[in-house]
Amino acid sequence: MQPLPGFRDFLPTDCAFRNAIFARWREVCRGYGFVEWDSPVLEPTALYRKKSGPEIVAQLFNFIDKGEREVAMRPELTPSLARVVAEHERAFRKPLKWFSIPQCFRYEKQQRGRLREHFQLNCDLIGDDAAAAEGEIIALAIDLLRAFGFTAKQVVVRLSDREFWTDLLRTRNVPEEQWSELLQVIDKSEREPRETTAVKLGDLADPVFQVLEGGGRSEKLEALVGQLELRGLADFVQVDLSIVRGLAYYTGVVFEVFDRAGKLRAIAGGGRYDNLISHLSDGLVSLPAVGFAMGDVVLGELIKETPEVFAPLAHVVSQQSALDIYLVIAKEERRPDALRQVQQLRDHGWRVDFSLGPAKVGKQFQSAEAMSARIALLYGDEWPQVKIKQMTSGDQELVAAEHLNDRLRQLL
Amino acid sequence: MQPLPGFRDFLPTDCAFRNAIFARWREVCRGYGFVEWDSPVLEPTALYRKKSGPEIVAQLFNFIDKGEREVAMRPELTPSLARVVAEHERAFRKPLKWFSIPQCFRYEKQQRGRLREHFQLNCDLIGDDAAAAEGEIIALAIDLLRAFGFTAKQVVVRLSDREFWTDLLRTRNVPEEQWSELLQVIDKSEREPRETTAVKLGDLADPVFQVLEGGGRSEKLEALVGQLELRGLADFVQVDLSIVRGLAYYTGVVFEVFDRAGKLRAIAGGGRYDNLISHLSDGLVSLPAVGFAMGDVVLGELIKETPEVFAPLAHVVSQQSALDIYLVIAKEERRPDALRQVQQLRDHGWRVDFSLGPAKVGKQFQSAEAMSARIALLYGDEWPQVKIKQMTSGDQELVAAEHLNDRLRQLL
Repeated sequence: MQPLPGFRDFLPTDCAFRNAIFARWREVCRGYGFVEWDSPVLEPTALYRKKSGPEIVAQLFNFIDKGEREVAMRPELTPSLARVVAEHERAFRKPLKWFSIPQCFRYEKQQRGRLREHFQLNCDLIGDDAAAAEGEIIALAIDLLRAFGFTAKQVVVRLSDREFWTDLLRTRNVPEEQWSELLQVIDKSEREPRETTAVKLGDLADPVFQVLEGGGRSEKLEALVGQLELRGLADFVQVDLSIVRGLAYYTGVVFEVFDRAGKLRAIAGGGRYDNLISHLSDGLVSLPAVGFAMGDVVLGELIKETPEVFAPLAHVVSQQSALDIYLVIAKEERRPDALRQVQQLRDHGWRVDFSLGPAKVGKQFQSAEAMSARIALLYGDEWPQVKIKQMTSGDQELVAAEHLNDRLRQLL
Repeated sequence: MQPLPGFRDFLPTDCAFRNAIFARWREVCRGYGFVEWDSPVLEPTALYRKKSGPEIVAQLFNFIDKGEREVAMRPELTPSLARVVAEHERAFRKPLKWFSIPQCFRYEKQQRGRLREHFQLNCDLIGDDAAAAEGEIIALAIDLLRAFGFTAKQVVVRLSDREFWTDLLRTRNVPEEQWSELLQVIDKSEREPRETTAVKLGDLADPVFQVLEGGGRSEKLEALVGQLELRGLADFVQVDLSIVRGLAYYTGVVFEVFDRAGKLRAIAGGGRYDNLISHLSDGLVSLPAVGFAMGDVVLGELIKETPEVFAPLAHVVSQQSALDIYLVIAKEERRPDALRQVQQLRDHGWRVDFSLGPAKVGKQFQSAEAMSARIALLYGDEWPQVKIKQMTSGDQELVAAEHLNDRLRQLL
């Protein structure tokens, strides 16, 4: 009676927590002029193989469908984005500012912060190669966290530039076919012994270590930090050239967002990928792009570990299921009258509940309390008057049934 | 570059339309005291086989995962609901009023109103066998449509009772193992020639046709209609004993919702299923239940075909992406000042956009219009004053930058 390993059931409280995260994500994205879109959970496997090479298949929930198609549950959104943008881009003004909250799936060993599914906010800005696009997208990533109450003391955007490294490799006459492997070595250098990295880098070890130890300067990144400074967000960013990001398709600025304490996996990551749409559309459509993804699992952990962030969100969550009104039917002969009013009250937009069968008055009040109702209405001997009880203060009053809505409008 | 057959891409307008439907569904469900939950997209195939028999597998997107598990993309939510409720029911007060909006998948021939995926609102009321539970759940189904503006002239709930038929079969000494097949014949009778049905029914043809032609009376259903009458919803319901619903697990009242014109497939369907949770949990947990499902595809078609319903929803949809403010940067040297203010305006909760690179003033105003911005702010020669232009009226005024927020608060 368990879900599959790595998959989550969302009981009402979990679901409300998740929805509260999604709602805030949507609000911030819309504040930036981003619009939501979505794509299918299932796509042709070829789409992912084309982007990431044949090795990706080992990590997919993939299969042959009943129509003999090779299909896979989406491990990420970007290939679908490229597919949809290549097909429809002519219908839209540039730049496209698109976001989506897909559920993504990977068949991987489960670890802390990594399940076999997660929801992943994707924000992509397509069709603009200005450096201001990076500024806009990184500011968005930061504001998505600020919206929960996170400060620069708690989270940091580590900023780098793949082009800085490819320039260095080019200057040193390293053949292009070795770049991808060397960039992976640099990406991993933080997590490996220095000697291992040195061996893998060979001749390049000295210049690379010099950069990693703070000797590198990138005017492009300094200008980008300057943009974020104007926005008042510079405290959140830190140039860190050791970030390269494993994915081969990034072409320029890359960044990852972490908790400052460094206890969790990356909260978000992204960068510029100017060639991907062209690659995935066989050159049909070529558009520069910059974007990032932020998962719900790591962010959820960080929220839960940060009391000053968790408490206000928990309050929002509890409000989501709170009732406005609970009807207490003290006499069963009043049930038809109550039923009539239930409908009117709900039509008014209030959240209303009541006991579907006969129950003791005390038990009905308990339900009202359990469901955080703000007001209980008592249908009993006083009819055609109704007793209004404000649940927090305990204040009670009698109101004629026909004036009930007016009075409730004042109270709610 | 197409999605798989039967799967939808949601471009921004489609996605906003879908989200507007979801938002209204959530609002109405919460008005009834229902809380949202969710379950995994992928479940053990055994869960569906157990509920629906081995034939169901032919309609599934099912496969063997990399851990040698038989898994399937959920074709419906109820088996997951039974799984989760059986596991966690002790943690909740009864009745549970739960809703969810899962995406469900079936490998079927595509037809109008039937794709290979759809989103399906599920509402279930669990742990209450009172007839009032049916009243509550059917009222909810009706209010979900009323919330879009549908009237009793446009939609109808066809109401029936499986128990009425099983009582009839019992009275006529029909062995129980034949019931399921006979009920299916009755269910299909509307869509088949009378003679075909008559042959299949044999001795039962006469009494069954007598009922189908209006000779049947059900006190239970009359009482239920009475409940809905008290709520002012009786115009929406019609007792129709020909509705049996194919699914074998219903135990009592069943209903289907249709457009009155009868042009589309069922908009929603459901009923009482008191034995299913016990069956799926191997008798571990036994709880009476009543619920229904409403898909987004048929409802979406009906909305689009009903101008008086579509127009107000389209307005909501267009609002979802409308900007509050567009910044027009008339002089590039003003960009840093504009950038500073973009952040402040967004922090204020307004939806703000601007051109990321230099562009002609006219083109920037075009963008403001295309994004339905209510206000354009002009950063140019007037700095440190900003020109405010109200896009609808064309009214313009100059405001000192430090008083901008105050003035915008008045205008927005």
